[in-house]
This record gives sequence, C-alpha cells and structure tokens, in this order.
Amino acid sequence: MSGVNGGSGGHLLPVSLADVEAARARIAPHVHRTPVLTSRTADGRAGARLFLKAEVYQRTGAFKVRGAFSRLTLLSGDERRRGVVAFSSGNHAQAVALAARELGVPATIVMPADAPAGKLAATRGYGARVVLYDRLAGEDREAVAARIVGEEGAVLVPPFDDPCVVAGQGTCALELLEEVPDLDVLVTPCGGAGLLSGCTVAATELRPAIAAWGVEPEAGDDVRRSLLAGRRVTIPVPRTIADSLQTTCVGEIPFAILTARAAGVVTATDDELAFAVAFAAMRMKVVIEPGGAAGLAALLAGKVPGTAGRRVGVVLSGGNVDPERLAAILASQNDRANEARASQ
Amino acid sequence: MSGVNGGSGGHLLPVSLADVEAARARIAPHVHRTPVLTSRTADGRAGARLFLKAEVYQRTGAFKVRGAFSRLTLLSGDERRRGVVAFSSGNHAQAVALAARELGVPATIVMPADAPAGKLAATRGYGARVVLYDRLAGEDREAVAARIVGEEGAVLVPPFDDPCVVAGQGTCALELLEEVPDLDVLVTPCGGAGLLSGCTVAATELRPAIAAWGVEPEAGDDVRRSLLAGRRVTIPVPRTIADSLQTTCVGEIPFAILTARAAGVVTATDDELAFAVAFAAMRMKVVIEPGGAAGLAALLAGKVPGTAGRRVGVVLSGGNVDPERLAAILASQNDRANEARASQ
Repeated sequence: MSGVNGGSGGHLLPVSLADVEAARARIAPHVHRTPVLTSRTADGRAGARLFLKAEVYQRTGAFKVRGAFSRLTLLSGDERRRGVVAFSSGNHAQAVALAARELGVPATIVMPADAPAGKLAATRGYGARVVLYDRLAGEDREAVAARIVGEEGAVLVPPFDDPCVVAGQGTCALELLEEVPDLDVLVTPCGGAGLLSGCTVAATELRPAIAAWGVEPEAGDDVRRSLLAGRRVTIPVPRTIADSLQTTCVGEIPFAILTARAAGVVTATDDELAFAVAFAAMRMKVVIEPGGAAGLAALLAGKVPGTAGRRVGVVLSGGNVDPERLAAILASQNDRANEARASQ
Repeated sequence: MSGVNGGSGGHLLPVSLADVEAARARIAPHVHRTPVLTSRTADGRAGARLFLKAEVYQRTGAFKVRGAFSRLTLLSGDERRRGVVAFSSGNHAQAVALAARELGVPATIVMPADAPAGKLAATRGYGARVVLYDRLAGEDREAVAARIVGEEGAVLVPPFDDPCVVAGQGTCALELLEEVPDLDVLVTPCGGAGLLSGCTVAATELRPAIAAWGVEPEAGDDVRRSLLAGRRVTIPVPRTIADSLQTTCVGEIPFAILTARAAGVVTATDDELAFAVAFAAMRMKVVIEPGGAAGLAALLAGKVPGTAGRRVGVVLSGGNVDPERLAAILASQNDRANEARASQ
C-alpha cells in the first residue's frame, strides 16, 4: 500500500464532480445502469459487507464504454467525419468501437497482437478497423496511433489520460453511491487508473470520509510505486494473467487525482486473481476477467486496510475472459473452490 | 413438442394463483427477488426479445429454495421438532437443508452417490445429515426416504409432487410477470415439472394468452412423452449433462397442471445445453448449470415454437455446476463461442 492520504479537499482537481455528472447525462442513453450484487459467501470470506458493482453486465462486458461514450459524445461534426483512433489491450478497444458505430463515427483501433482472441474478434465485430502491434517486442502503440492521427486527421481517444474519459469512468461510482450511499470504502481495479481516479473523484466528493483504494497486479505495481515516489514511475510491460491491467505508467490526470484524494493502491498476486475469478464463477455465478476481479481478489485475500466489518463498494470491472483461460483457471482453482464451498 | 394446448380456464387446478401468492408472502423474508437480465446478443441469436429471470442468483444458486421455504414455513410445531427428509440430485437438497437450518428444523437429505461433489459438500455445509444411495444401480431413493420417515417420524419434503412446493416455485413467474407484464411466451427447464407447473399456473392466470413451454434434455423426455400419451410415462434414469433434470417421471400434481395449461414441452440435446452454458458464461457473464440452461438452450437453438419476434420470459433456474464440468464445457465449446462472438 502507498502512504498517500486524501480527502483533504481544497485541491483543484483536473476532473470535478460536475464533470462526472455531465458525463452521466451524456452517456445515459447509451450505457446500462449495472446492478449492485451482494453475496453472503463473499462477505464471510472478506470479513466485510460487500456491494459489488457488476460492470461485467455493462455493454461490451466492461466499464470502458462509459469513458468512450463520454468522449465521443463531445466530438464536433468535423471530428466525427474524420473519425477516431484508440490504442488498447482490449476492453477500451471494444468500447470505442461500439461507441463509434453507435454514433456513426469511423474508428481505427491499435491493438497488441497478443490480445485475447475474443477481444480482437469482438472489436472487429463492432465494425472497427484493427491495426496490430507487437508489445512484447517493444513496439510503441502510441507512435502507431499518432501516425494514424497525423495521416488521417483522426481524433485520438486515450484509454485513461483524458478528463472526459476519467469523468465517464467516474459515473460508475456515482451510480454505486446513489444506490448504497453509506459506503466506508471503495475498491476498484487499477491499470492506467482511469476508473480508479474517476471513481475517486465521485466518491470523495459525495462522501468525503470514504477511503478509495485501487488494486494492481503484483507484477505491475507502477501506480503503487508512483504514489510512494510522488512522481509517475514507468515499468516494463508486466507479465500477469490480468491482461486488462498490463499498463506501464499511470496517466498524468489520474495521478493528480489519486495523489490528492485516493487512500492508496495495494496489489494482488496472479494466484489471488485466479482464486477470485473461480470464487466469483462458482460461488457468485458471475464471470469476471482476471483484471476485473482485482478489487475482489484483494478483499478476499484481506489485503485492503480498514475494511474489517465495514461497508465496502467493489467494482467488478470487466468480464471478457477467453473461454480457454477461464477453463484453465477453474481447473487450477478447483480444489480451493470446493474447499471454499464446503466451508460455507 | 407435444400437441397439448392450454389456457382454456375453467379447470379446477390442484394449485391456484392464490396459493402462489400466499407462498410468496411466506417465503419473502427468506428468498431473494432475483434480477431479470436482458442480452442483445442472446436476443439476436434467438430471434426474440428475451427476459431472463436469473435464479442462479437465488440463495443456494437455484430456484428450489422457493418451494422448500414454501413447504417448511407450513410445518406445525410438532413437525418442526421431528424434522424433515428430502431426496434430491442436488439443488432441492441444498434448498431443504438451508430452509431447515434457517427455520431451526433438523434435516436429512437422501442424495445420489454420483451427485456433483460441490452439491454434496454444500448440502453438508448447510448442516444437514446426508444419506447416499446408488441411483445407477437402481436403488430407490423414495424407499430410502420412506424408511427415514417411518423410523424417525420426519416429514417428507418432495422435490416437485407437492402443492406447497409447486406454489413456491410459481413465485418465480409471479415476480417475472410483475416486472415484465407483457410476455407472449414463458420458457422454463423441466425435470419433475415443479418449476414448470408452478410457473404455468401463475403465468396463465395472470396472462391467459401466454404460452408456457418446458424444456427437457433430449435423453430424458418423460414429460413430453407423458403429455403426448395423456398419462404419466416413466423412463429409465436418463444419461445427460443436465444432472438437475435426470428425473424419470413427472409428478402427479404438475402433470395435472401441465395437461390443463401448458403449451407443451420441447427438448434440448446435451450439445445444445453445453453451448447455452458456454454462451451464457462468455457472452452474458452468467454461470448456469446445464439443466438450468435448458430454456435458454432451446431458444438459442430455435426449438420453441411461436417465439420469433416475440417477448419471451426465460427462467435460468440454477448455477450449481462443478468447476471441472464448467471448464470442460468451456473447452469443448471454445470454437463455437469464439465464432458466436466474432459474428456480433
């Protein structure tokens, strides 16, 4: 965990509660208001009362459509004609592709060649042009996207370092706190920290005493390190089963928000992520991808400080896991899942 | 499909709408009002507008707690002291065990020795005494249960052939039609037909024009055959992946209701059931057991008559699948799931 403390108020944040509320009004016709699930079994294991915002039931299967619609609904007529470009390991790609199709905007998506097959197929299925790059060979996706911006005049839609995108992701916490106002803690997965920072703005503005925590994969703890160092730290592409959290550096806008307002960031190991995926599938009947399960994983492992006996909001941020990966996780976690079940 | 038609009214049914409403009042403090899910992807494949009543999120992971609480809340003080006994392939067992624990009643559950390990563990986890029998060797679970009734004075809680149990299961359709009143068709899985008959009573009383269909595994189509023959037909224990639908003969009470009111029963093959399980997990992020997916399976396969372009309620009746079985289904359906995804 980082030692950063927040909730002091008075900071001029790059994204305000009013921005989040405006984003909600723009995206409301396009996105689902997702359900908040509860599970006595999960509560028992986490030692807290959990309210799980199930963004796995969001359109495209992840929260990312909130940020995508938030940004694309602000395009000018001229920008709509020129189109948009995005780079993404998957869920942001599908989100921009869907939003672009629905708003009648051409879209080009720059994706890693090793992205899950399902995410590649879904992005193409939404009608977007897909351009692949090799992230493990060090190809720079931002450079690929910048070339398309330069050549075609397309508008870049960043996955997290954009105030409109951050405001859109924050609508997730806005909905959760409307439904469960008296939360003590909010926990979200953390990649580039668009979701965490947007939710942190909404949550700490609506409820200043709330502690907003992010959860990173242990192998990719750049945000935790950045908060400890007081500056944005870049790491190599982390190797983790949480493909949606394989970011190398937190965004500038998210970092400013987290520095001012977040309680901190903790990490979950790949084994803890896999256990949470199997636990959610077997005990809660919800399919979550490993990265989307990061918040739940840290809570089930008792790694989020100050949660014992408290009311904790948790974002289950995405459910786009390939069947072969889910099958492998279920097989590997079979004994532990049965053990968890027998102990109920 | 059977040629049986219904909705004629005037029949004196063994279970009335008032019975279902009374059951709802008794069980309300004990069971969840489960969410109704929608999925554009599933709609597209089924060619209908689906409203999926997600009983996988019910307590114990299946609708069976409705019937169990409906029956156990009517026990006299003396009956509560003597305890209850139930025989079940799994979900009814967990339901009776949970209801008994919550109401302070001793419970003995007679279960097949080849029931999924998770269901055995969960039943024991709820504090019930479990007595095993070998169904494939022809041991008679009813005889085992009757012995316990005789020796201990326990009250038998039948899995489906009981008016209180049928009325309890019917609360599922009551809730669904309250939320989505203008359904044209209702589809539920069908084993002993407790769920189908209870839902058929509620649905056809509230909305006489509705067509209520059941779906059986192709290898275990005793209810379809019974409706065609006009009498209850007994079959050998069917071999199917739908362990929760391995019944050999429809209940007398359910059969009377279906004869008077159901549109009929269709079947789904094991491959269609497996596809529906994989489709629900990958595309809808919901874990359903093979038997619980029967209604969805028949709709995705285009096997329920009169659904094209209509509004169709579907009960996803249970989610208690062992991780190794779910993993195997996901692996076997991987190519088809990816193909379905790419076509979106």
